[in-house]
Amino acid sequence: MGNKKNKYKDSYYMRMAISLASRGTGNVSPNPKVGAVIVKEDEVVGFGWHRQLGGNHAEVEALAMAQENAKGATVYVNLEPCSHYGKTPPCAPRLVEAGVSRVVISMVDPNEKVNGKGISILEQAGIQVDIGIEREASVWLNRGFIKRVKTGRPWVILKAALTADGNIAMQNGYSKWITNEFSRTSAHLLRAECDAILVGAGTVIKDNPRLDVRDAPGKSPLKVVLDSRYRVPITSKVFDRGRTIIMGSELMFKESSFASYRDRDNSTVEIMFAQSENNGKVDIERVLQLLGDLGVNYLLVEGGAEVFSSFVSRRLFDEISLFINPSFMGKGIGMTRNVNVTSLEDRIGFNVLRVSNLEGDLWIEGVSKCSQDLLRM
Amino acid sequence: MGNKKNKYKDSYYMRMAISLASRGTGNVSPNPKVGAVIVKEDEVVGFGWHRQLGGNHAEVEALAMAQENAKGATVYVNLEPCSHYGKTPPCAPRLVEAGVSRVVISMVDPNEKVNGKGISILEQAGIQVDIGIEREASVWLNRGFIKRVKTGRPWVILKAALTADGNIAMQNGYSKWITNEFSRTSAHLLRAECDAILVGAGTVIKDNPRLDVRDAPGKSPLKVVLDSRYRVPITSKVFDRGRTIIMGSELMFKESSFASYRDRDNSTVEIMFAQSENNGKVDIERVLQLLGDLGVNYLLVEGGAEVFSSFVSRRLFDEISLFINPSFMGKGIGMTRNVNVTSLEDRIGFNVLRVSNLEGDLWIEGVSKCSQDLLRM
Repeated sequence: MGNKKNKYKDSYYMRMAISLASRGTGNVSPNPKVGAVIVKEDEVVGFGWHRQLGGNHAEVEALAMAQENAKGATVYVNLEPCSHYGKTPPCAPRLVEAGVSRVVISMVDPNEKVNGKGISILEQAGIQVDIGIEREASVWLNRGFIKRVKTGRPWVILKAALTADGNIAMQNGYSKWITNEFSRTSAHLLRAECDAILVGAGTVIKDNPRLDVRDAPGKSPLKVVLDSRYRVPITSKVFDRGRTIIMGSELMFKESSFASYRDRDNSTVEIMFAQSENNGKVDIERVLQLLGDLGVNYLLVEGGAEVFSSFVSRRLFDEISLFINPSFMGKGIGMTRNVNVTSLEDRIGFNVLRVSNLEGDLWIEGVSKCSQDLLRM
Repeated sequence: MGNKKNKYKDSYYMRMAISLASRGTGNVSPNPKVGAVIVKEDEVVGFGWHRQLGGNHAEVEALAMAQENAKGATVYVNLEPCSHYGKTPPCAPRLVEAGVSRVVISMVDPNEKVNGKGISILEQAGIQVDIGIEREASVWLNRGFIKRVKTGRPWVILKAALTADGNIAMQNGYSKWITNEFSRTSAHLLRAECDAILVGAGTVIKDNPRLDVRDAPGKSPLKVVLDSRYRVPITSKVFDRGRTIIMGSELMFKESSFASYRDRDNSTVEIMFAQSENNGKVDIERVLQLLGDLGVNYLLVEGGAEVFSSFVSRRLFDEISLFINPSFMGKGIGMTRNVNVTSLEDRIGFNVLRVSNLEGDLWIEGVSKCSQDLLRM
């Protein structure tokens, strides 16, 4: 991979590519976020990123900017260039055509359709390929894509607003608001970064949330409501705009009660069956599988306590975003009140990644230990 | 107060005095922590701090070092020099005798016996006195002394080790250990900084703690056990060494059951009556008053849930030290499980001062909003 000077240079331009890639956040799923930088004689002659699903790939954007300068240049790209026809023609052959002399790749594409094939195309054309630069940052950026490709399920982020003693609401269910305005805006930014938001029927009935992105720029994600018994009223705000999926049980479904969902002006409501084979209730593993099939890379789970408890008990979360207001409520609704562990060793742990002060509230972000291992593989 | 150059210079030496003062932590109560720096022609010619109760005051130490150089020098001291005979002769007249020309004081002594009298002595002798430099830092350093002098009660620090969902133990009471070794060492450092540690009888019975300082340097503080019904066994480790006070109820006291406490080799056990006039149970306000009378400036409250709940419900804490292990337990013993608030606005809040990463655990330190106001007065 060359000398030390090259190492620093490679890191520098790869960080640039990763930063460009991150601009696609919220708009490219089920695709990965990709950025590309083309460098010739220590000058950037082209750059680009995958802006939205169906749009140009990063490499194509960068090549279009570089034009003739691409010949003999080095290309930095955070993910292996694709080798297959998807919504657009493959990128690896186009890099060959453009006559680049070196391609630096942060991580191999875990997608079976690519997985080394893009690299082969480049190498067979005599292009020098270097792999692994800034890999950790690239993997984290595309953790949702990687998890879905490897497991068929989205990367699950549990987001909760709670007091220092672990309560997400008063005993009577009241929770407006536990955290401050800055926390709530940050939570909306988090929504905009995800492909879908999931809540339980209880939350829709109790809080009647819109589950859209209002307090921050960004598109509103797909909404998912877990509702075994179809208890959620048709008039709920969650159905007003955008696309909503009710994850229900086939056993309890009556066609009649949902006929009214079919003709809507500004929104789409769908019903999917996600029951467990054992008890006919909605099964969250099945839900995750269905959302994976829909191309959801990042799923934000927003509660309430029953839903949080299910995801925590079954260790089905990957990431944690806790917005903590520094206060005590005492008797309230605990975030994980249905979780039962039988020994201290069985506690469900996570690693803290970052703690931010949000004008007095604390935002604790963490990652499940198993999910971190998944990304290392 | 002179020009801008003086302002920076005054801050610089006052910070030095405050830093020296902090070396007395854990050893000088009921006295305040005091440090002094003597500066002549931009050079430190003397410095000192109050090292332990009964020892020299900071000014005396600094004057002893400065000797003849004190004449015409500036003295920096974080607290107003004393004017009254305590365990040692007063400092203000000694500064006059030494011929210093200026005294810079961070805060006036809230103690009624001094409160401006030290300053008067200096000013009447023609010494220039400047007050208020780095006041906030000085106030924080001596918050325990200030609170006790103003209210008769110690500064109360609630210390708990808990999970991210607010549990301090399993449902069966098991809690060894919620947090990691680094957290526990930090908690021992906190003990060494306090004058007394308080726990409930339940904690002594269940955990049988020694409540001393083992994992860190520093002296072990006074131990206080709340025990209305004298349930704590005489064989408990807490009684093995040092001084322990049982805060009990006069109504339930039987002389016979405690005769055995009287003759001990390595320890002292006392009983104090701290019952409420209403119900005969131990009353924590009464406990705080008694500890204030004993000269306790800093009281560390270590649980369990009943004790935490009492202090939180009655808003009798000043500072919070939460050692949080990033994990979920679900159903467990919540730190504040007996606290009842009737609306979100009634939550008992605190301001976060600092968050530290202790090898994976989080240490959140905060201060009660009311206590912050008390210090501002």
